[in-house]
Formats: sequence, C-alpha cells, structure tokens
Amino acid sequence: MKRTIFFILFLSVSIAPLFAQKNDSTIIRSIFEQELSKGKAYELLTRLCTDIGPRLSGSDNAARSVEWCKKMMENYEFDRVFLQEVMVPHWVRGEKEKANIIYNNKSIDVPVCALGGSVGTGKLGLRSQVIEVKTFEELATLGRKKVAGKLVFFNRPMDPTKINTFEAYGGAVNQRGSGAVEAAKYGAIGVIVRSMTLASDDYPHTGAMRPYVDSLPKIPACAISTNAADLLSAMMKSNPDLEFYFKMSCETLPDVKSYNVVGEIKGTELPDEIIVVGGHLDSWDLGQGAHDDGAGVMQSLEALRLLKSLNIRPKRTIRAVMFMNEENGLRGGIKYAELAKANKDNHIAAIESDEGGFVPRGFGMDMPIDKMEKIRSWKKLFEPYGILQFPAGHGGADIGPLKEQGVPQISLIPDSQRYFDFHHAATDKILGVNKRELEMGTAALTSLLYLLSEYGL
Amino acid sequence: MKRTIFFILFLSVSIAPLFAQKNDSTIIRSIFEQELSKGKAYELLTRLCTDIGPRLSGSDNAARSVEWCKKMMENYEFDRVFLQEVMVPHWVRGEKEKANIIYNNKSIDVPVCALGGSVGTGKLGLRSQVIEVKTFEELATLGRKKVAGKLVFFNRPMDPTKINTFEAYGGAVNQRGSGAVEAAKYGAIGVIVRSMTLASDDYPHTGAMRPYVDSLPKIPACAISTNAADLLSAMMKSNPDLEFYFKMSCETLPDVKSYNVVGEIKGTELPDEIIVVGGHLDSWDLGQGAHDDGAGVMQSLEALRLLKSLNIRPKRTIRAVMFMNEENGLRGGIKYAELAKANKDNHIAAIESDEGGFVPRGFGMDMPIDKMEKIRSWKKLFEPYGILQFPAGHGGADIGPLKEQGVPQISLIPDSQRYFDFHHAATDKILGVNKRELEMGTAALTSLLYLLSEYGL
Repeated sequence: MKRTIFFILFLSVSIAPLFAQKNDSTIIRSIFEQELSKGKAYELLTRLCTDIGPRLSGSDNAARSVEWCKKMMENYEFDRVFLQEVMVPHWVRGEKEKANIIYNNKSIDVPVCALGGSVGTGKLGLRSQVIEVKTFEELATLGRKKVAGKLVFFNRPMDPTKINTFEAYGGAVNQRGSGAVEAAKYGAIGVIVRSMTLASDDYPHTGAMRPYVDSLPKIPACAISTNAADLLSAMMKSNPDLEFYFKMSCETLPDVKSYNVVGEIKGTELPDEIIVVGGHLDSWDLGQGAHDDGAGVMQSLEALRLLKSLNIRPKRTIRAVMFMNEENGLRGGIKYAELAKANKDNHIAAIESDEGGFVPRGFGMDMPIDKMEKIRSWKKLFEPYGILQFPAGHGGADIGPLKEQGVPQISLIPDSQRYFDFHHAATDKILGVNKRELEMGTAALTSLLYLLSEYGL
Repeated sequence: MKRTIFFILFLSVSIAPLFAQKNDSTIIRSIFEQELSKGKAYELLTRLCTDIGPRLSGSDNAARSVEWCKKMMENYEFDRVFLQEVMVPHWVRGEKEKANIIYNNKSIDVPVCALGGSVGTGKLGLRSQVIEVKTFEELATLGRKKVAGKLVFFNRPMDPTKINTFEAYGGAVNQRGSGAVEAAKYGAIGVIVRSMTLASDDYPHTGAMRPYVDSLPKIPACAISTNAADLLSAMMKSNPDLEFYFKMSCETLPDVKSYNVVGEIKGTELPDEIIVVGGHLDSWDLGQGAHDDGAGVMQSLEALRLLKSLNIRPKRTIRAVMFMNEENGLRGGIKYAELAKANKDNHIAAIESDEGGFVPRGFGMDMPIDKMEKIRSWKKLFEPYGILQFPAGHGGADIGPLKEQGVPQISLIPDSQRYFDFHHAATDKILGVNKRELEMGTAALTSLLYLLSEYGL
C-alpha cells in the first residue's frame, strides 16, 4: 500500500509537468505553424517600411508611425491600447552630404553621412589635412601638435574574427560615439569615422554620437563607407598631405512631443502580472528601419495578434511596447520605466527584439540564476525550431531602464552574421528581410510569451 | 603507492584527451579566424559565378569551370590534382520560354521555364485547357476522360509549416519529378508545375524531371512562378475554360565528355586513408549556381587551401572533389564511386556541402552509431561557432554512390530558411550569398576535415 501511494505520488509529480510540456509543445507547434502559414509579421513590416518609411525621432514619419501602430492595435482589438507621451530630440540631416578626397589638384567623391547628433559644417564645408588613427590612445600620443586644425580619421575596423558580430561592433563603436569629443580635445576641426560594418561596400552607416561636452568645441563628425575608408587610408600612404573635404547641413532642432505605443492583452488569472515584449519604433533615416528595428516592433505587435488569432488567452497580461527614440536618446525607454514605477506596475519579465529579423538562435537573459534556470527548463520545447541557445546576456536598450526595478531582462537572439550589413545604412530596407526568418523570430517570441504568461517567472 | 599509480594512470587517461581537445580548439579557432579575416571562399565563389556563370552539364561554361578549378588547385599547389572523365547528358534550354493565360479573348504573360530534361513544344507551342490537381491520386480520380488533350497543372505548394525547408521540398518535388509521366498516362499533352519555392515571387524554378517512360508519350513540362501559379488557380475558379499557352524549344543532345575535378593533400601518417569533401560543379542555367552548388565546391577547394595556408599537415589524405552532373544525371558521383571501387581506395568518410552557403548549424550523419558518437564527441569544439546540431541524416547525392562501399556519409547543414528562395532559379546569384555566412560554413567544413584527418573515424 505504501508503495502504491508512493508510486501515485511519484506519478503525479513526475508526469504532471510531462503532460504540461506535451500540451505546451502542441501549443508552440501551433504558434509556429500559424505564423509560417498565415502570419502577418512580414506584411506588417512591409507596410511600416514602405507606406511610412524611415522614422527618426521628431520626424513627421515618426508621428505617422505612432498613429498607424495605434490604429493597427485597435483594429486587432487588443484589450487596451494607449500612448505614453514623451519629449524626444529632433535632429535633422538636412541636404545629402558631400565629401571628396583632394590630392594633386584632383578630387574623388566618397560616400559619407553625418553621424546622428553632429553639428553641420556650415555652408562652405570643411577642408583640411587628415590624421588617421586606430585608437584614442594613438590620438593622445599624437597630441595637439599633430592634430590641431586637422580632421581625425578613426579607422579601426570591426574585428571580423569575432563570431558574434555584436562583439565586433562593441569593439569599434566608441570611435563613432566618442570620436568627436576625443578629437576636439586636441584641437581637431572635424572627424571621419569608418562605418560600423563588416561588409566592404559603399554605404556609410550613421548612428548616434555621445553628446558633445560643453567645455570643448563641437566639431562635425561623419561616417565614411568601408570601401572609401580603405581608399582614403591607402591614398594617405602615398599622399600623406592629401586633404579631405566634407559638407553637412545637419542640425539639432528643439525637442518634439512624441509617444510610446502600448497595446495589451489582459491576463485571465493574474492580470496584474505584466510581461512586456517590445522593440523601438524610431529608426535611422537612411534606409527604412527594417531590421533596426521595424522587425522588433512588428514582431511584438504580431505576437499579440497571433495569440488572439489562436484563441490563446494568457493567464498573465502581455503587453507590446513600441518604444520611441531608442536610436538617439532612449527617451521612450526611460519614460516607460518612469511610468511603470509611478503606477507601481508589476512587470514579471521584459523581452526585447532589437537585433534584426533573422533566424532565431536563442534567448539571452539578465536575471537571477533561478529564473534563468526556469527558462532553461523550457529548452526542449524550443529545440524543434533550432532555438538552442539560452546564455546569460543582456536584455536590450529600451527595457534596460526597467532593470533598476528588478525586472528580469530577456533578448531575442537572432543569427548575427548579416546584421551589420544593414545596421543604420541605406541598405536597411524590407528587401533585406527574409519573410520566413522574420516569422521564425516572431513565433519564437510568441512561444516564450505564452510560457511566461502560463507559468510566470 | 598504489594510490599514486592509480592517480597517475587516472591523470594520463583523463587529461590526455583534454589536452588534445584544448589543442584542437586552438586549431579550430585559428581556422575560423583565418577564414573570417583572410579567407578566399567568397572571392572564389564570386569568380566562379561572374567570370564563368551557370554551368549546366555539357555546356561550354561547364567545360570552362572544369579547367578553371583545376588551374586554381594547381595554383594552390595541392599535392595531386587530376580529372576523372565522365560522359554527361547534354540538355539545352534553347530560346527563352513564353507562356500566357488566355481567357475571354484576353491574354496575360506569365513567367515559366522548361523543366530539365523536358522535350520542347514545337515551334507553334502548345495551347489547351487546364486541369488543376494537387496530387497524383487526384489526377487518377479525374482519369483519362477529364485529362486527355489538356494541360495538367500540378499546384501543390511546399508546406510552409515545415521548419526544415528541405522537408517541405521533399513533400512537393514529386510533381516536378514525375508529373509529366503521370499526366501522360491519362492523355495529357503537357504539364505546368508550381515552382518549388516557399517564396511568393515571379521566378520560375527549374530542376530535373525523372526520365520519360518509353511506353508513354513524352510531353513537355514547364515550371511556373508561384505568383503566376496562384493567379492561374484563382482565374480558373471564375474561368474554368481558360486556356494556357506555352512555347519551349528545349531539347536533349548527345552526351558530352566532361570531368570531375579532384585535388588532394596527402596525409603525413596514413596517406591511404582518404577523406572526401565535395559539392557539385555543374549548376542549373537560370542563375549563376551560387548557392547550388558553387558554394559547396568553392568551400571544398577553400578548405584545402586554408589547411595549407595554416600549415596544418593532415595525418590522413584529404581530397576535394568537384562532382560533375549532380543536377541532371549524377554521372560524376557514380563515376567517382566506380573508380574508388576499381582502385580499392580506402575512403574513411565523405562530406558533402550542397545545401547552400548559409550560416552552418551542424552536420548530418549516415553511418554506424559508434562512428556517429565519435563525431558527436567533438561537439564541444564546434559550440563556440553556433554549430550545435549533429543529427542522424543523409550525406548527399554525390557521395551517395560511395555508401555501397560502406563509406560514412556526412552533410554540412546550413540554416535552411532561405535556400528555396534561390534554388534552381534566376535568383541564385552571388548577390544572394552573404560573405560571412559562406566563410562560417567553410570554416566548419575545414574544422571537421581537420578532426577526421587527425583521429580517423
């Protein structure tokens, strides 16, 4: 008798989760099948990219994208749709930039673009000799004597031997972020930064600079395509006195009122426990903001639509957030966390998709180890979809400000190999997004949302 | 004393493989770093695709590609470079095909292409009513009465809910392979086959038909783009009597002499144990044969060059084989196995790369379980590169004939999501290949070759 009871107890303990996982695996299968056969992620992203286009904070397009996303959420009859007002920076590129390498009375046009936040060059542009460096240390060693009055050319490539391209980006991006401030310390009059990409091509990649420092002159900064960076570097070897000319009419206008767009499906059992999924609605202005981060916001919107279309009523509340102004201010992410704190919202997890619409490989996690292990216990459920990686990592920029409130952070990890071919460049258009890859990422996100809403964290 | 000896024994047993793996992991790291920073896979593939172009068996381009590959192998000073003569089929497409949907005295042009091996339509083309079916069973049910004198339209799509797109392909490709023979049984005068792709676009995808059967009329077969297939199907609902017209001038010419191209690095310790790595040099004629299978052959060539450039002298012989005529005959693969048997070559493993130049996810294996487990014991070495899948599976078409001789079969498994966007279509050009993804696959192959040459199987 004892043994029987023990056996029954054993059964109920060991088989219950087995049944749950079996049921979960069926639901996750239906999520993938629905998205891959009748999903709307790609159609939504196509509309965002082509009907609206690039959506830099403060622009008319950004305002239109807010309205459109709100309308789509309402059309899909989410339980609650609302905007969160936030003031955002308003930097504008102005006319298309021009640049030349000038040597021996000849001149070669090269593709450049202003870095986000840069001042312009004035109508006449800037022309001067060039000092090429790879690091800030090298710049410091050259010192004011060699640098003053010149243009500093930061030409340290992203390291192609890094398997994760974000690591390669992390190893080079300080040139873009801090190059202008560092060069100004030594009297440089402008900076040229090698584009943050592993591709050899003719597209300059923009991106935010860190704010200028009041104590130093604000000098203009442009990105140059990798091919042109290689050309400039090679030419400087035979013509060390060559000059570089560039003209940019970018400027920073007064802040503009904008919004985060929020839509949610109320939880049936624990509506006060909130799970956030999101990306950023703003984008750089050169392409269409397809991978960065139209993909993430449309995946988040689609995740909620998909759950509804499958009649999956989550136990906990699931909220899609389209953050405004990740690219040059993070004002939306900060505002969201501020309001969450003021409203005493109970966020049990936040997921960000902001690494492109590529095939999903896993989820990165920044949370206490026991919570991480809980998510890892779902690994088997993701295996059939090639989603195998569950490393400790970070969440994402927009959900970052929630971390202070102890909200566990999760990032969707898509394959990173192609991301920097598109990132912040004119190439970031819907044409560069593969429909199935985007759908696979959407289904991965939706499946994780389902599990989190079912079991909490 | 006893304990000490035991301890030493224990150490020598348990740490030796640990050291080996540490050394192996350093070598594999150097393989990846070298390919990602100074690799030539992409440059080689670009030359094959643009200097030579499509390479259908029997064509002048195929002959040029043989010469070029041999020359490259000689330039790289492989220990032995040779050709294996083989007679191959010579099917030619002729003039670009034409097709229209004709209804109510109106006509719409639609994109079609002849299937490989099809007869032509004659100069006047073929025009008739259309019968749409999804399966051969449906066709049989309709029977001769409904089918005779008409064009059969096979319109079963690849199943988008399959995660592995090769599975979706496997579920639809019998329409292309056997459609003409099946339709001829019921008196059809031609067939139209929905293209084998998951994309909705305007590119017809060609591919081989199974040989005609002598007892049945040989009827012409074309592939139609998926968009046009959907259009045709939709129009037939409102115009069941519409007609379809197509004209193709393809034909089969006498067999042509061609070659497999073989290059090898001799093993330093066990030169008689051979490891083959290969892909097929021939390609369909509509694109440039970039993913299918320029990628595989250039990866194989590059793998040997890479080992040499790193001064890795393999213990066993490594042989790169560029098989001729995989697409429409497999004559090269069959010839290679024939010669291996005649020469009593000792092949310890054969690896095929013929699933595109995408990011590598793992290796499929067809071999006894103990050998599979040996390869799986190297899993940890591949983990840092996101190569995590080591399933039982098949090797590949070209190495298939070696199976009879008991040669263990391995396939490189790249991510499959985008493959059928390109497969056998005009889109299969170098532009669709990502440099880093191709390099990652190359380094994966090279690493496995290194391990096999070091430890055997």
